[in-house]
Amino acid sequence: MIPKSHPRYESLMKREKLVDALNRGILAKAGLIAHGRGETFDYLIGEKTTETALNAIKAAAALLVLAENPIISVNGNTVALAIDEIVELAKELNGKIEINLFYRTREREIAIKNEFYRKYKDDVESGKIKILGLNAKKQIPNLDSLRGKVSEDFYNADVVLVPLEDGDRTEALVKMGKKVIAIDLNPLSRTAKAATITIVDELTRCLPLLIKYVREYKKVNRDELRKIVENFDNKKNLKETLNYIIERLKNIEF
Amino acid sequence: MIPKSHPRYESLMKREKLVDALNRGILAKAGLIAHGRGETFDYLIGEKTTETALNAIKAAAALLVLAENPIISVNGNTVALAIDEIVELAKELNGKIEINLFYRTREREIAIKNEFYRKYKDDVESGKIKILGLNAKKQIPNLDSLRGKVSEDFYNADVVLVPLEDGDRTEALVKMGKKVIAIDLNPLSRTAKAATITIVDELTRCLPLLIKYVREYKKVNRDELRKIVENFDNKKNLKETLNYIIERLKNIEF
Repeated sequence: MIPKSHPRYESLMKREKLVDALNRGILAKAGLIAHGRGETFDYLIGEKTTETALNAIKAAAALLVLAENPIISVNGNTVALAIDEIVELAKELNGKIEINLFYRTREREIAIKNEFYRKYKDDVESGKIKILGLNAKKQIPNLDSLRGKVSEDFYNADVVLVPLEDGDRTEALVKMGKKVIAIDLNPLSRTAKAATITIVDELTRCLPLLIKYVREYKKVNRDELRKIVENFDNKKNLKETLNYIIERLKNIEF
Repeated sequence: MIPKSHPRYESLMKREKLVDALNRGILAKAGLIAHGRGETFDYLIGEKTTETALNAIKAAAALLVLAENPIISVNGNTVALAIDEIVELAKELNGKIEINLFYRTREREIAIKNEFYRKYKDDVESGKIKILGLNAKKQIPNLDSLRGKVSEDFYNADVVLVPLEDGDRTEALVKMGKKVIAIDLNPLSRTAKAATITIVDELTRCLPLLIKYVREYKKVNRDELRKIVENFDNKKNLKETLNYIIERLKNIEF
């Protein structure tokens, strides 16, 4: 047991969750390496939600509320770290959650589906959330078949939230004409650059804020929400994030 | 199989090696996360040996050649990625290699020892290399007992090479009066800051250079080597590495 007083408590707890998810077949081994890459970027932004991240969260919330048919895509890392927040967000929208794995195996798809059914049985049975993607038949153009297979619902979605997504897939989704909201700690990644809105923040830190603003924006008129989306400039926001990191690095004393 | 032409070939091969080492009980799961953290820093320095890293490599080579009783400390990640280079370097010195694990288990110690015995049977049997640390009885002061247990040889070493070391242990070794050479991709880590000489470079990229300079410096007189060591300023070198990263980040276009 890690004591709550430990200065790295949050970070160590996340690692424990990931190792546990690996042991239970939810996470791929490469998912641990990817998490480590994210840890470094989180360290560089100071392990807190920056002002620029908050701007992206607000624009993303507005876009999700405006969406006619949004969907949330999840992989092993997302489920390991933030299954509760994903379900909470999905219930504020249309309940659609799609399982889409980079290292796709039937076993892992089922392990992830079972995790939702185990933790959120009532919500699944009542139809408040829908777990999609397991018998995906539609194909995203310009992407190899395994990673490109999606459900009919995903194929037809206008707005997709892709936490921890890879670059190829993000680019292919944007090419399809979808509006893509990425959550990615690396402001320099192809995903970050290709997405419509990139939230450069740690998953479990930004999702509660995203949920909060989705709830708030449901009461706001659509013209105002459109303005929030239109006024958001992803490239400018990424550049500001990078400048924030540079300023932090400049002030480090040895 | 990853084709050699893949733009991320080196990086993907390293991941395969690590996953393989995990499957064979050499690597701890947390070792995969640590590798990911390193990947991000490697990306920030441009995935090549910088001028400042080369300065540190030369100073480290000089210090190793001057040492009376050097020793190389290895953990799961080091063995997974660079067992061949570690053995080659050890043979240029006194052959001493100490197994010291952060997540210490008897099984993993033995798996690592067996890896050396399997791949370098002749060198172990002839005494060209010595695999130490398995029945470690000496205790490093100011460190908890598991991570602090070292062999008599390690305890008495004047210079220790610690690739991929953690901060607590590095600080404790420096406090003991040892000269510590760290290899760490994070120029901001406690290890990087505490070590006598920090090589901010990827392990398999810097070890061949370190071996090359050790060979070369064996032919150089000791006064000249002492000058190389004395002229090296670790804090200044780390600051230069950081400035290099800042300049690279400044020049990124979105």
